[in-house]
Amino acid sequence: MSRFYRKTFKKAGEAPGTLISSATSGEVKIHVLAYNIEKVIDEEVNDIESAFDIKLEGGVTWINIDGLSDINAIEKIGEKLNIHKLTLEDILSIGQRPKFEEYGEYIFVVLKMLFFNESKGRVESEQLSIILTKDYVVTFQEKVGDVFENIRVRLKKENAKMRKLNTDFLLYSLVDAVVDHYFIVLEKIGEKIEHMEDQVIDNPVPKTLKQIHKIKSDMLFLRKSVWPLREVVNTLTKTDSSTINDSTHIYFRDVHDHTVQVIETIETLKDMAGGLLDTYLSSVSNRMTEASNRMNEVMKILTIFASIFIPLTFIAGVYGMNFEYMPELKWMYGYPMIWAVMIIMTLVMLIYYRKKKWI
Amino acid sequence: MSRFYRKTFKKAGEAPGTLISSATSGEVKIHVLAYNIEKVIDEEVNDIESAFDIKLEGGVTWINIDGLSDINAIEKIGEKLNIHKLTLEDILSIGQRPKFEEYGEYIFVVLKMLFFNESKGRVESEQLSIILTKDYVVTFQEKVGDVFENIRVRLKKENAKMRKLNTDFLLYSLVDAVVDHYFIVLEKIGEKIEHMEDQVIDNPVPKTLKQIHKIKSDMLFLRKSVWPLREVVNTLTKTDSSTINDSTHIYFRDVHDHTVQVIETIETLKDMAGGLLDTYLSSVSNRMTEASNRMNEVMKILTIFASIFIPLTFIAGVYGMNFEYMPELKWMYGYPMIWAVMIIMTLVMLIYYRKKKWI
Amino acid sequence: MSRFYRKTFKKAGEAPGTLISSATSGEVKIHVLAYNIEKVIDEEVNDIESAFDIKLEGGVTWINIDGLSDINAIEKIGEKLNIHKLTLEDILSIGQRPKFEEYGEYIFVVLKMLFFNESKGRVESEQLSIILTKDYVVTFQEKVGDVFENIRVRLKKENAKMRKLNTDFLLYSLVDAVVDHYFIVLEKIGEKIEHMEDQVIDNPVPKTLKQIHKIKSDMLFLRKSVWPLREVVNTLTKTDSSTINDSTHIYFRDVHDHTVQVIETIETLKDMAGGLLDTYLSSVSNRMTEASNRMNEVMKILTIFASIFIPLTFIAGVYGMNFEYMPELKWMYGYPMIWAVMIIMTLVMLIYYRKKKWI
Amino acid sequence: MSRFYRKTFKKAGEAPGTLISSATSGEVKIHVLAYNIEKVIDEEVNDIESAFDIKLEGGVTWINIDGLSDINAIEKIGEKLNIHKLTLEDILSIGQRPKFEEYGEYIFVVLKMLFFNESKGRVESEQLSIILTKDYVVTFQEKVGDVFENIRVRLKKENAKMRKLNTDFLLYSLVDAVVDHYFIVLEKIGEKIEHMEDQVIDNPVPKTLKQIHKIKSDMLFLRKSVWPLREVVNTLTKTDSSTINDSTHIYFRDVHDHTVQVIETIETLKDMAGGLLDTYLSSVSNRMTEASNRMNEVMKILTIFASIFIPLTFIAGVYGMNFEYMPELKWMYGYPMIWAVMIIMTLVMLIYYRKKKWI
Amino acid sequence: MSRFYRKTFKKAGEAPGTLISSATSGEVKIHVLAYNIEKVIDEEVNDIESAFDIKLEGGVTWINIDGLSDINAIEKIGEKLNIHKLTLEDILSIGQRPKFEEYGEYIFVVLKMLFFNESKGRVESEQLSIILTKDYVVTFQEKVGDVFENIRVRLKKENAKMRKLNTDFLLYSLVDAVVDHYFIVLEKIGEKIEHMEDQVIDNPVPKTLKQIHKIKSDMLFLRKSVWPLREVVNTLTKTDSSTINDSTHIYFRDVHDHTVQVIETIETLKDMAGGLLDTYLSSVSNRMTEASNRMNEVMKILTIFASIFIPLTFIAGVYGMNFEYMPELKWMYGYPMIWAVMIIMTLVMLIYYRKKKWI
Repeated sequence: MSRFYRKTFKKAGEAPGTLISSATSGEVKIHVLAYNIEKVIDEEVNDIESAFDIKLEGGVTWINIDGLSDINAIEKIGEKLNIHKLTLEDILSIGQRPKFEEYGEYIFVVLKMLFFNESKGRVESEQLSIILTKDYVVTFQEKVGDVFENIRVRLKKENAKMRKLNTDFLLYSLVDAVVDHYFIVLEKIGEKIEHMEDQVIDNPVPKTLKQIHKIKSDMLFLRKSVWPLREVVNTLTKTDSSTINDSTHIYFRDVHDHTVQVIETIETLKDMAGGLLDTYLSSVSNRMTEASNRMNEVMKILTIFASIFIPLTFIAGVYGMNFEYMPELKWMYGYPMIWAVMIIMTLVMLIYYRKKKWI
Repeated sequence: MSRFYRKTFKKAGEAPGTLISSATSGEVKIHVLAYNIEKVIDEEVNDIESAFDIKLEGGVTWINIDGLSDINAIEKIGEKLNIHKLTLEDILSIGQRPKFEEYGEYIFVVLKMLFFNESKGRVESEQLSIILTKDYVVTFQEKVGDVFENIRVRLKKENAKMRKLNTDFLLYSLVDAVVDHYFIVLEKIGEKIEHMEDQVIDNPVPKTLKQIHKIKSDMLFLRKSVWPLREVVNTLTKTDSSTINDSTHIYFRDVHDHTVQVIETIETLKDMAGGLLDTYLSSVSNRMTEASNRMNEVMKILTIFASIFIPLTFIAGVYGMNFEYMPELKWMYGYPMIWAVMIIMTLVMLIYYRKKKWI
Repeated sequence: MSRFYRKTFKKAGEAPGTLISSATSGEVKIHVLAYNIEKVIDEEVNDIESAFDIKLEGGVTWINIDGLSDINAIEKIGEKLNIHKLTLEDILSIGQRPKFEEYGEYIFVVLKMLFFNESKGRVESEQLSIILTKDYVVTFQEKVGDVFENIRVRLKKENAKMRKLNTDFLLYSLVDAVVDHYFIVLEKIGEKIEHMEDQVIDNPVPKTLKQIHKIKSDMLFLRKSVWPLREVVNTLTKTDSSTINDSTHIYFRDVHDHTVQVIETIETLKDMAGGLLDTYLSSVSNRMTEASNRMNEVMKILTIFASIFIPLTFIAGVYGMNFEYMPELKWMYGYPMIWAVMIIMTLVMLIYYRKKKWI
Repeated sequence: MSRFYRKTFKKAGEAPGTLISSATSGEVKIHVLAYNIEKVIDEEVNDIESAFDIKLEGGVTWINIDGLSDINAIEKIGEKLNIHKLTLEDILSIGQRPKFEEYGEYIFVVLKMLFFNESKGRVESEQLSIILTKDYVVTFQEKVGDVFENIRVRLKKENAKMRKLNTDFLLYSLVDAVVDHYFIVLEKIGEKIEHMEDQVIDNPVPKTLKQIHKIKSDMLFLRKSVWPLREVVNTLTKTDSSTINDSTHIYFRDVHDHTVQVIETIETLKDMAGGLLDTYLSSVSNRMTEASNRMNEVMKILTIFASIFIPLTFIAGVYGMNFEYMPELKWMYGYPMIWAVMIIMTLVMLIYYRKKKWI
Repeated sequence: MSRFYRKTFKKAGEAPGTLISSATSGEVKIHVLAYNIEKVIDEEVNDIESAFDIKLEGGVTWINIDGLSDINAIEKIGEKLNIHKLTLEDILSIGQRPKFEEYGEYIFVVLKMLFFNESKGRVESEQLSIILTKDYVVTFQEKVGDVFENIRVRLKKENAKMRKLNTDFLLYSLVDAVVDHYFIVLEKIGEKIEHMEDQVIDNPVPKTLKQIHKIKSDMLFLRKSVWPLREVVNTLTKTDSSTINDSTHIYFRDVHDHTVQVIETIETLKDMAGGLLDTYLSSVSNRMTEASNRMNEVMKILTIFASIFIPLTFIAGVYGMNFEYMPELKWMYGYPMIWAVMIIMTLVMLIYYRKKKWI
């Protein structure tokens, strides 16, 4: 649930730019990947100062920070790259909505990385903040583990086309990787919904209901996480910021197309998940009608037996009485007569039920 | 289901323009139709190189490629016509949303051809990518079989007006044929819904529910496939690309009208399919009420019989007891008296039930 | 149903402007009404050529064609007034959405006339296509019978103000008559819904459900038919076409107001019809609850009788057994004792049920 | 119901501006309130001519007409103030949507006054048409009784600030009074909904359903009546008509704020009323479940009694048979044996039901 | 409930700017906080006149008024700061929607402070009106208690950066504190919904329904209170009012981001609350089906017992009759024969029920 609302780390009324990390503890890893056309340096460093020292001429330095508990490091980055206090506050406060902000010398982008947690069967998100300057790309993640492995591999390849390009292309590659990963998450959810569709009609039990509820809730979460991205990428497509080259715009346009597609798919899956609940309700009602019909059958059998034999038993009971003066008992044909009466009564009842189509 | 989300062929983080075909195998057919005012060449070729050689002076060459497994061929087309890597990636990745892109020298259009699979009773789609240059129209389809047979016939006719026109008119004809075919699909779905409408009220069984669910899901699919087309065609109506002549705009306006009509029809059918489920639920509830009412009738019969005859049987049982000292048994009028009591009891019960309107 | 989607007369891929009438047979009536300030000619003609010959100086000629089966006539009109092939195709293809098109020398308007078919209790529509030039108004209807009788009467009156005006005012009058007739249709539907509202709560039977479904479907149809009209009339209000005088704009603004009102009324009625179904479901559930409660009452009576008298009968049965050694039978007070036991049991049960509030 | 659609007084196809009153009979009252800084004249007049004669120098004359049956009077006003035929038609045709029209010399505003009819428990509306010229404000109401009493009182006060101002401020005051009165109506509806909220959960009976339906229908009506007002007042805020002074714009902005608030409140109340129906359905289903559970209890009691005593009675019946050769009957311990059997059977059944948790 | 609509304090038709307080009684507290770079004065005063006297050179004076019952004081503020009558009316009339108004010399902002009342489990709101001039910030609250404690603490700190800034930064701080507090309220609601989610499926009782209804109603209230804020803050971000410095815009942009996030969270929570009701209904239906199934089991047991033993009892009853001439009774094997018949009947019934899968 908590993923549905921003965790408020700053107390209401606190000064803007007061840095309080949401992750009070936890390891912090700083990884630096610096490259230019000729060379790649791939190193893990311990303190942020040394990270900025790794710089290749005419190249790009990508500093990735996993974990948000080291406020000092973040403040130092702020000083080093001249970052606004509000930006630093945003980096630390997870639960941000995706956004794009241009601050003269740097660009600030917040994204959500989404993962499908197979064991819980739910979608999880991790906040990714990116600061882009002419020379540096600094990325902040909540914890270790991301969707950029392919990018790292590509960068380290000999003659990687990417190594000839600037920080803006790295930004594009990161955003593209994040968005491409959404498709994988959506595919998993799609499969789950497909699986539910059969269950809903064939087996509308409470467990199924719980799963539908979970999927619907996940779709709301996904939607909330991805919708603002459209605007973010759209701005990237059009921004005339000096840090984004015109030739990169076409790539952002491609990401924009993918984002739109992600959103449309989310909307469709959301509608489908919503449809599941409606179908579930109909399906349960169906079950109930069937139960009612079955009970009708049971009741009919009971009623037929009871209504035929209870009166007959009564008649037999009458002639089982021990009154001294019961003339019928003396009659020669009393016994066969009573049989005749009982058979006729039975036939009448059977015909009646026949007419009612009960038998 | 898989049709609801893009198949991700590129791994997240892969370089843009990495060509990986979604169709790893499968036959590829290259068909060339070149024409100018005087002449038509209609030929199937084996390699893409020779396809480009077929060219009539002042005429149009339409290269149609069925099957996406031959990445080489697609790369060669890319080189030949100077196509952007991202475009080639889009052609290979099925599950694209319809789009229009202008790249200076060429126009790139992605559409969805829709077919109604009678045997499965479902809508299926096939991606159609079109590259338009001054001289060439190259179309890419997922597999053999399309909606363009009429266009081919028309082109081969003597003095076909179309042969005097440029590639842009061929583009129009292709788009028009795709959109016109939507109406056929919609008509089929309309008939199915019409058929369901009676079923829903007269026979709200689980099978009907399954069919409603399928139709609703199909409508979501259709909507997702067709909505973006509106924008695509609208752009075609207004583009000042040099490859589209002004005189063709009026034809695209016509297609635009049809597209809007398709979308409105989809929305209406979607609403109708949604309404089916609501009606279904009401209809099932109706059934259940009827079952309850019927059961009430059954129960009433049982109750009347049981409540009248069980007490009577008890009375008869009492006087069937073998106690030695039961004064009533000796009475002269004991037997008729007991009959009188029993008849009165019965009448009282009957009057009671009469008052309750049970009988 | 078929009214929900365009009838596709052109095969997909057919050349644009291929004229195939949807009405392959059926009578065609051509009616001409030519007027100027001094004179009115009101004539039915057999061939379209002679229709164009009827022309009064400085006046307007209104040619009305009922029935779309005579393709020749329509082609001749096309030649005569220099109409685009696509327009002619539109005229012939019923199921068009309302639209306004300006083609330099003429204006083309497609509208839907709506009628309420009392016997079927449903809304029906007829396509009305209007071609407007400086001198001619040509109207095409699917069949005989329209909403223009009042206009014809007004035109034939001495000194009719309308006779001093141009074709654009006739266009206005036609559109206004069509829209005004919508109110009549909406009033009928409103009355039906009002009638349903009582039924839904007082008598939620399947027949009522069918009617709700029909009304909802009609509202979707109406909406689809009328929504685009707003844009059409809005364009007429603003167009700077030379065929529409500025002084007529104010009249179209009035029609525009009415159209907006029609649309708002349709939306409201649609919401009300949708509400009917929700209320119906609640109402049926109510019924079911009542049935359950009634059944509870029935079951209680049965249970009270059965649970009291079945044990008593058993006791009586015990002492009706013929064992030779049953000491109780010999006791002097066996019989009254057993009565006492039975009365106590009965009282216990009655008190129990009393406590349960069953009696 | 009839309040949901415009009453069509003009027959479809009738000439525009044909004045046919919707109110064919009914008294007409003409009330004149003329004022300038020094003086106020408050008079009821019999004919419209004399109304216009009442004019104070540099002052405003407000003519209020209650009742729309006197077409002559309205035509005279039309001539006097040079009003367009279409405006007069609009005044007479009730069921107009709120609108603002500027006709050079005068402004025409249509509003809905809303009243809450306590006895019927429903919202009712009355059309208010206002014509505003430099010197005159003419208001048309359907019948006697309005929301302007406070304005009249204020105007008659010595030194009323309002008396120094022009017709536009009177217009503002009228519109403001109408909108302010909406809050009173909304408050009543709010109270009704609040009252329903408890009922829906505690007492979901058909009567409650009827009331929910009525409220929902009222909300649709309100929405339809008030929505267009937003645009009307917004236009008044911005219009550069010479009849509206710039200094009055700020007052209209205030009304605009109120109107937006009214609309938001209507939307919220509408959502709440819609929520009532959903809750009602859940509540009824709850009831039904409770009824089912109660029935289960009843059935269990019946089944326990019947399944224990019916077999016992059968056993007793067996030994009540009169066969001559029934060895058991002669046994010394036959009777106690049979008791033992019966007691064991009873215990077995009791244990069985105990295990099933029925007892 | 009353929180859903504006309390109308002005009678409809009353003059604009007539000051009638909604809070006719209640204590009024005036608190002044004046600061400049060097000094802070924090004082509670008794009359409004003296409040304005507290002024530090080049500094800001923040006057906070808790309680709206002292109309005199408010009028004096109006005179002192030259406030428009309509603004004063707005301050007094609680139930305003959030708004921003610029009046030349001053800015007027209305906000809603939201609190979560733990004991009632509901959201409550308090209106906050802010008047901003170059030198003064005057805030009006309905009652004592707000979300600004942190701001006061920060202001009193030595060297507070805030003390160097103007009134516009104080405005920002106030708005920011209000919006930040929304997150706390949303978190509480989120927790409640999370808690409901389990209950709805596991325990769909009427009490749960009541809580869902309350939450849904709260979400509507929240939405109504917060939506307009987006526009307010957006205007603050862009206004070129002289009272707002350009450097403060970036801070308002930050608040704007938060506001958008609040709104998105509200929408998501609203959807979740709506989903709860749908799930509840399905869950109740589930329960009902289970009840029906259980009842089926009960009925089957009853029917099996009754249909087997009632006929047997009848047979026993027949041979318990006392007719003199019943040949069977004399037969040597009558008794075993009858046992055989009864056992066979029982077996037949058991096999029958076995086949029906009842046992």
